[in-house]
Amino acid sequence: MFTLFHHPFCPHSRFIRLIAGEYGLDLKLVEERSWERREAFLLLNAAGTTPVLVDEEQPPIPGAAIIAEYVDEAYGAGMGPKRLMPETLPERVEVRRLMAWFNEKFFEEVSHPLVTERIYKRFMSEENGGGAPSADVMRAAKANVRYHLAYIGWLAQTRNFLAGDRLTYADLAAAAHLSAIDYLGDVPWSEDDAAKAWYARVKSRPSFRPLLSEWLAGVPASRTYVDLDF
Amino acid sequence: MFTLFHHPFCPHSRFIRLIAGEYGLDLKLVEERSWERREAFLLLNAAGTTPVLVDEEQPPIPGAAIIAEYVDEAYGAGMGPKRLMPETLPERVEVRRLMAWFNEKFFEEVSHPLVTERIYKRFMSEENGGGAPSADVMRAAKANVRYHLAYIGWLAQTRNFLAGDRLTYADLAAAAHLSAIDYLGDVPWSEDDAAKAWYARVKSRPSFRPLLSEWLAGVPASRTYVDLDF
Repeated sequence: MFTLFHHPFCPHSRFIRLIAGEYGLDLKLVEERSWERREAFLLLNAAGTTPVLVDEEQPPIPGAAIIAEYVDEAYGAGMGPKRLMPETLPERVEVRRLMAWFNEKFFEEVSHPLVTERIYKRFMSEENGGGAPSADVMRAAKANVRYHLAYIGWLAQTRNFLAGDRLTYADLAAAAHLSAIDYLGDVPWSEDDAAKAWYARVKSRPSFRPLLSEWLAGVPASRTYVDLDF
Repeated sequence: MFTLFHHPFCPHSRFIRLIAGEYGLDLKLVEERSWERREAFLLLNAAGTTPVLVDEEQPPIPGAAIIAEYVDEAYGAGMGPKRLMPETLPERVEVRRLMAWFNEKFFEEVSHPLVTERIYKRFMSEENGGGAPSADVMRAAKANVRYHLAYIGWLAQTRNFLAGDRLTYADLAAAAHLSAIDYLGDVPWSEDDAAKAWYARVKSRPSFRPLLSEWLAGVPASRTYVDLDF
């Protein structure tokens, strides 16, 4: 049994939930509002960020990339063809490159600003940075999402999945970040058919269902969020 | 033979140079000014950032963390007791946690702003963001370095090296980022004796020598930069 300290709209937490879903790992979810800097949470992760995975009898594992490496080292080899990290060195480089692309670059340029402005700020006190969303920040992030979508579309046209022939961490990272802003209706799907078709495939996987069924009171999901034929 | 696209003051590039030094890997260095967004470099790494390692006959490997994992997978096991990644799962989590702490958090809060303001801006054209350094940005980064130094000191008092008994990637990542700003005289060493003693040990390693001997025309190194008994 694993415990995941997460937030429903934290894209990195969604990535770990998708991995757990694919591997059939049982997660107990604990919602953490990282901006409150809860003392007991800072003891689990001095950086104060979600997600943190606690695997029984092991020290806590902080951060999406580190959790992904841990899960691969602890459970990957036993997953056979369902393993989400490939085995050859060049393929592993490509999966890690794309994981970092979405977990770092897409996060910084798109998903973090949009989720912060539109979701987190509702829950933050004024001293934690709460308040009205910044139109400037949202406009910049919405401009950035377009070039990322084109990049996803280009990869999806070149390959079966983003990093190669098979589903890997790269697809789940990309889909996790997209899903958080798709809830908000901030993905211009009509601009890239290949990206849309790839996302429809990933979104149809059973591992995605728990994400699609969680709605936030007061913030309805976009028209296309749950629809598998959006 | 490896080729490393780097910048002498890019802390992530310094990290990879230290790893190569420890492992005796022969690096050909190519200086890249990433802000110029050279087209041939963007083909090596679409993210446009240094470092990028090219290992013969392999696709290019972009980014410090990804290069470190690659080098461990390709060469680590053959290094015996000199291996910079431990073998047990909890120890690997701790090394990766601290690598990320320095390569991401320390970079964002300290080394990136200081190196950008004080070094990169000298070489940037105005349209690339060049110009006079921002006093506000430097003040904030210099305030941040103090809590990081205290954290290093706390780790160094608890353990022989930052992540445990032996030298690991965690020490080299921390030392790489510190070295870039130590050149500029921006590390308040007198504030933490344990951190200073740990850094003196790491800085005395032969792998550090090439970094200490490179000076930048017009920007002299701080009084303590080269001194092993600073």
